[in-house]
This record gives sequence, structure tokens and C-alpha cells, in this order.
Amino acid sequence: MKIDIHKGFVRLDGYEATDLSVVNAARVSFGQKKDFMDESDVGLIKFLMKNRHGTPFEHNFFRFHIKTPIFVAREWMRHRIGSFNEFSMRYSVSESEFYMPEIDHFRTQTGKPGSYTFEPMDDSTGQVGFSQRQVQEVYDFAHQTYKQLLAQGVAKEIARIVLPVGTYTEFYWSINARSLMNFVSLRNAPEAMLEIREFASAIEYLFSQIMPVTHQSFLEFGRVAV
Amino acid sequence: MKIDIHKGFVRLDGYEATDLSVVNAARVSFGQKKDFMDESDVGLIKFLMKNRHGTPFEHNFFRFHIKTPIFVAREWMRHRIGSFNEFSMRYSVSESEFYMPEIDHFRTQTGKPGSYTFEPMDDSTGQVGFSQRQVQEVYDFAHQTYKQLLAQGVAKEIARIVLPVGTYTEFYWSINARSLMNFVSLRNAPEAMLEIREFASAIEYLFSQIMPVTHQSFLEFGRVAV
Amino acid sequence: MKIDIHKGFVRLDGYEATDLSVVNAARVSFGQKKDFMDESDVGLIKFLMKNRHGTPFEHNFFRFHIKTPIFVAREWMRHRIGSFNEFSMRYSVSESEFYMPEIDHFRTQTGKPGSYTFEPMDDSTGQVGFSQRQVQEVYDFAHQTYKQLLAQGVAKEIARIVLPVGTYTEFYWSINARSLMNFVSLRNAPEAMLEIREFASAIEYLFSQIMPVTHQSFLEFGRVAV
Amino acid sequence: MKIDIHKGFVRLDGYEATDLSVVNAARVSFGQKKDFMDESDVGLIKFLMKNRHGTPFEHNFFRFHIKTPIFVAREWMRHRIGSFNEFSMRYSVSESEFYMPEIDHFRTQTGKPGSYTFEPMDDSTGQVGFSQRQVQEVYDFAHQTYKQLLAQGVAKEIARIVLPVGTYTEFYWSINARSLMNFVSLRNAPEAMLEIREFASAIEYLFSQIMPVTHQSFLEFGRVAV
Repeated sequence: MKIDIHKGFVRLDGYEATDLSVVNAARVSFGQKKDFMDESDVGLIKFLMKNRHGTPFEHNFFRFHIKTPIFVAREWMRHRIGSFNEFSMRYSVSESEFYMPEIDHFRTQTGKPGSYTFEPMDDSTGQVGFSQRQVQEVYDFAHQTYKQLLAQGVAKEIARIVLPVGTYTEFYWSINARSLMNFVSLRNAPEAMLEIREFASAIEYLFSQIMPVTHQSFLEFGRVAV
Repeated sequence: MKIDIHKGFVRLDGYEATDLSVVNAARVSFGQKKDFMDESDVGLIKFLMKNRHGTPFEHNFFRFHIKTPIFVAREWMRHRIGSFNEFSMRYSVSESEFYMPEIDHFRTQTGKPGSYTFEPMDDSTGQVGFSQRQVQEVYDFAHQTYKQLLAQGVAKEIARIVLPVGTYTEFYWSINARSLMNFVSLRNAPEAMLEIREFASAIEYLFSQIMPVTHQSFLEFGRVAV
Repeated sequence: MKIDIHKGFVRLDGYEATDLSVVNAARVSFGQKKDFMDESDVGLIKFLMKNRHGTPFEHNFFRFHIKTPIFVAREWMRHRIGSFNEFSMRYSVSESEFYMPEIDHFRTQTGKPGSYTFEPMDDSTGQVGFSQRQVQEVYDFAHQTYKQLLAQGVAKEIARIVLPVGTYTEFYWSINARSLMNFVSLRNAPEAMLEIREFASAIEYLFSQIMPVTHQSFLEFGRVAV
Repeated sequence: MKIDIHKGFVRLDGYEATDLSVVNAARVSFGQKKDFMDESDVGLIKFLMKNRHGTPFEHNFFRFHIKTPIFVAREWMRHRIGSFNEFSMRYSVSESEFYMPEIDHFRTQTGKPGSYTFEPMDDSTGQVGFSQRQVQEVYDFAHQTYKQLLAQGVAKEIARIVLPVGTYTEFYWSINARSLMNFVSLRNAPEAMLEIREFASAIEYLFSQIMPVTHQSFLEFGRVAV
């Protein structure tokens, strides 16, 4: 399962996760184990979510392959309970791939930290197209200089210092449902940055397909971290 | 896959783990992905192990169901990078199941912390059988009292205070290969307590069946935490 | 600072924690640092708490020395974000110290998991005193057998299998304010077991003395994990 | 205590750490506590280090304030056992501060991943100075464009996408000695990137001043993660 987002993507590379895994991890408290879920198990999942019994949601596994700009990856990797392996610009040459916000993604910012309001920019005078060209010029100049530095023999790890944080990177991310819900509750949220929210929304969609009862319960109890 | 150990067991309840997952997590550094392993990938795994590149070993998952005495479970749960859900004596009544060391498990201890020597006890005068009966008497008296307290209306969470740490418990344990190797390096080791070593040995055996190249590499580089 | 709880205690052994550390960790987002708190900083802490910005609450440190029964320590150590070092019955001989619930701590349990009701036991016929004596008899018999096994040469790590989970243990616990609040929100709560709640209450009191603004804010926003 | 590194720094903002804290955390295993260290305690620390008893090294705390380029910060934040709060380019305007490698830091790279050799570049034809000017031109153009985008009303979080990974950032980092040693063993090492090694070396120096016995023991047993 792969969802494209601009020039990047979220791809589910592997998983071992079912709603039943939550139920069985919880029922070990009572010395019970089930092979199929029934109605009482739906209630059990709701009970666990409501009462912040978080550990039964940890006995499962998702491995994602992500392609996203560096400034998005940096926010992502602040979420520590999970595993990351990323493309290395010490070892490999970065492709000329950069994030270019579409016209409706160019936005202005008013207010102060914690209560910013974002509005699409006024494009009546072609301002946004002009801004896009300015961004592209930096991207082009930076990448051209990067290639020249490499050609002059500069080590990859030094040459990359000119590359903008809009450059695309890739990484693997392994996570369990509890940490995934924590990520989604913070990043697929109105106050999150639009660019990471688009990715977090894709993560939540894939999660909802694999653990629908858990996801439904997550919605029902306010989408907070359990 | 289930391995019995005295009255307890280790059961592999689910997993999403292959040697290839290590290779692909590492190769994301170079922007590469493979569907099958070849000889160069064996070399890559050895390279990662030797040079302590630990994160590629995290993108996989094992879920175990364990039954073991409380004093073993307590050591186990000091290993924090992993998920635990345990049988609860607040919610459920404990069965009359206790760990009884076999004759060759009754041992004496000489030396000092860090350099203990353990030897089987001298059983020429039937000393071990006598010790076993003494242990059994405590187990019987404690469990009988426990049942009486319950019958008198005492809450389960209070009645259980008389139960010995030799009582069996059960738990789910979810872990990735990196943490599993750390556990095994410390607990399937000569200086580990015999009772946890028997369980750690079973864990290591199951791991070696599922990720044989990684396990072989773990052996080759001294069985230390990566 | 030391608070006695039955035969156990909570002792604050060291700390590096102020409300100002929260403010400065948060203000690094704006490239600012302060030497004293003012009114706007109180508002900042409230803002962080309300909006689940958890990381600024991590840049501080508490080290506690705890003495508590094993069955309480076991619940405590499920909280994984923190450091533990415990008294070892593999290395040292356990003293004859056991938790004996006072009369008003002997309780009955009705209802089902998640909605138990606990009531003090009816003591009109001296039932509680009788139960206490039964518990004490197991404690005495277990400890006497433990000492005999040691005298017969049985290794400490084997002899201890007869000791009840009511036996006292000691441990060091190091933690930051964010994890401490998570612990307190779950364990100093109506649905928590009475015995751990008494300890969690002491932890919360000590915390409130050292980081009063943070604690006040924790209360104000519902005592949930940030 | 503050150590300047190019235009950045490492500043120790607070700590609660002594060699004695290691000793006391370990001695809780034996039910002992000391107020001063003696010779036997030096031996105990060596014993713990040698035998990978890692947890006694966790009961202490260091809080650093770091200023470093983004590409260094990104490597740093892969180390997950610790707390981070960073300057935010969503909330604040980035200053025009960029990392410019000095002549002897411009290097070439030969070999392959895992066995790279780095050599200073041949500067006989003024090549390095030329490369430095190329890097500076990207920095200048990027920052000028960044300021223009802001002036045109583009939100800070979008305008920053043109800023290179050589831009300076700041963060708070809180960590215990065990995690600090793990960081230092990997990053103050020959195979580490030069720019992060300079910072890791400063961290190790500050650590050695505060916990000299632990640091000496770390050196003695091969500077590996305990």
C-alpha cells in the first residue's frame, strides 16, 4: 500500500497488527486468549482506550517507507518511540528533488506561537508564482553548486551543506499502534504544519485499514494519546 | 512454536522479521531496496554488527507469550526497550503453580558478587530432597492461606501478598531483534541466573530460526549488544 | 526529604529541577533564555501543559530512594521511562520485613475489572485481626524456611523463591518531570491500588514542592499525561 | 562551562552527577549507601563498566545547551535516549549564521561506505578558497531569498524551505551518563563525521570533569557502550 504525497510517498512495507492482538495482550491479565474477536472484544478495546490502558496497544508492528522533505523528516524524528533508518548524504549523492509548495500551499501567518492563523496568500498580482520562482532559483543554484563541489573533489558530507531543507530524503520507520496514535494525534491535527499533516493523514488512513476497531475507538475518545 | 521449560514455556505468538529487513533498512542509506538476499547482503549484516550500526536491526518484530516464575519475570522486565502485558493478580485468582527446582538445580553459592561460583549441592544425605520438601511446605501453606483469605472476602490484590515469588505468572513480550540480542547477550550468559538463562536460551533458539544470518553474525562478533 | 509509608519510605536523594528549566527549554524555540520567572512564564507553562507540548518538561531530574513491598515495586517498574536499580536477593540476604495491611487497609472487592468497588471489611467478629494473623503466619513460616535453606547451603537466589511478594525491597528511581507526572496521573488516582497510591501521593507532594508552577498547571488541566 | 566550536558552542547548563551516584545506585543491590567514595568504590565502578552493568550509570543528569549546524543536529537527534528541545523556524526567524568549513576541514573522500578515507584537499591552485566562495554564494543567495519571501508575507515555516542544512540551530539536550557515553563512543570516534566529532569531544571533556572516575573507567574498557 503506497500513497503519493507531492513528490514523496508513504508506503507500508510490512506489518504484524490486528485488533485481536490488542485483545489478547489485554486478556493475558485474565489468563485468556482468543482466536476471533466478538462483540465483547470491541467493548474491551473501548474500555482500554477510555481508561488510558496503553500497553495492550503496543504488541503489534508497522514498518513504513517514507519519502518526504528534510524539514518534515526533522519534525517526524522528534517522535522517539520508534525506529528510524534514513538515506545518508554522507554515503550517497542526493538527487535533485525538492519540495515546491503548490499555489494553495503558499500561506501567510498571523498571530503568535500557539495561536497562529494561516491563510492562503493573495495571488491577484501573481505574487505566489513569483515566490515559487524565487524558491526554485535557490534550489537550482544550490544543487548546481553541490554538483560542482562534488566534481571538484569535495567529500559528499561537506558538499551537502549547501542543500536546502526542502530537499527530499527517505527513511524507514517502524512503530507500534500506541506510538502511531500518539504521532497521529499530534501531527494529523489542526495546529500541525500542513506538510507533515498530509503525511500523518496518510499514516492514519493506513492504520485505520489494518486496525479498524482500534482506530474507531481512537476517534471516539478524542484522538488523544493513550 | 512453543518450548516448554519446567512448568512454564516460551511461545512465539507472532512475528514480522527476516534477515532481509535488516538489509533493506540499511540500504535505505543508499537509496536501494532488494527482494532477495545475496552474498553481499550477508557481508553487509556482518559489517553492521561489527561496527555497531544498531538501528537496521530494529525494523522487525517478535511477540512472545511467556510463562515463568515471578522472580524470573522481575529480572526480565528490567529490560525496558520492549512491551509487556502481564497476568494480573489484582483481577484474577492465581493458580496453585509454583517453581520447584529439580535436584540438579539446587545449588550452593561461593565467592562474592560478580564472581560467584555455583555448584550442585551435595545430596549424599538426602539434603536436596529435604530442601525441596521445605520449599513445597511453604508453597502449600501460602496457597492454602491465599484461598482462605479470598473465601473470607479479602480482595484479590491484598490476599496475594502471601504468595511467594516462586509463583508462576504469564506475560506477552514484544521486542525487535536489536533489543532481543541485548537481552540474550546478558541473560543467556554464564553469569546469568540459571532460571532466566533457560528462558533466554529458548528465545535465542527461536530467534536463530527466523533470522539465521543475523544470529550467525551475532555469534561471530562475540554476542555483545550491537 | 523523606516520607515514611508503613515500614517503607520515599526519600528524595537528589534533583536538578525548577519551573524555570521548563521555561528555558521551551524558549529555546524562540532563541531566548531567562534567569528568573515572571508572570508570562506562568502562562507559558500553562500553555505547554494545555496543548500537550511535553518535551520542555523533560529537562530536569529527580532521583528517589524507595522502600516498598515487592508487589508494589512490580507495578512501579512497568513505568519504563526512567531508571531503576534495586536491592538484589541474588547478592544479599533479605531482612525479615513484610507489609502488613492495617485494619482499614483490609478490604473486599466487588464488581468487575475496570469498575471494582473496594470496601473496608466487616470487622464486627474480629475477622480482620484473624486475617492479619493468617498473613503473619505465612510470613513467619516463609522467612524461617528461607533462613534454614540458607543455613543448609542453598544459594540465595534459590532460597528466596519461598519469600512472599509482601516482602520489602528497595530501589533507586531516576525520572524527569514529564514521566513523573505520567506516573502520578495513573498511580495517584482513584482506580489505582491503595498501596501504590500512598507512594505516588508522596512522590506528587515532593514534586509539588520543587516545581510548584508546573504542578499547579498539572492540576489545572486534569492531571493527565502531557 | 562553555566551549566554542566554530560559530557554535557546547554549554553545560545544569547537572546533578557525581561518581558517587553510580556507587550508591549499585550498592542499593546490597542495601548500602555511602557519603564519600573510597578506593573500593573505584574498583566497583570498574567492575560495573567491565561487566556491562549499565543501569547504575543512569542515576545522574546533564543538561546541555548546544549551537550547531542543522546537518550536525540531525545526526545528534538520532540518539533517542535523551530529551531535546530545539529552536523552531516555524516560530522564529533564522539568523544569517552558516557553517563555513575552514581550509583544513575541506576534505576529499575515497573508499566505500564503512571504510572511507578522508584527506585534506589539495589547495595548491587555490581550489579550497574557490570552493568556500561557492558555498558562501549559496548561503548568501538562500538567506537573501528567505528574507524576501518573509517580506512578501510568506509564512516562516514555508520561507525556510530554501535554507541550507549548513544553517546554525540551537537546542537543549538532557541526558544521563550511560546515554552520554554511548553517544561519545559513536561520535567521538575516528569513523564519525569530523563536524560532530568536534562537538562530541567537547561533551566528553565536560563529562570527564564531572565524573572523572567513571570517565577513566570508560577509557580503560575500550570506550564502548556499557
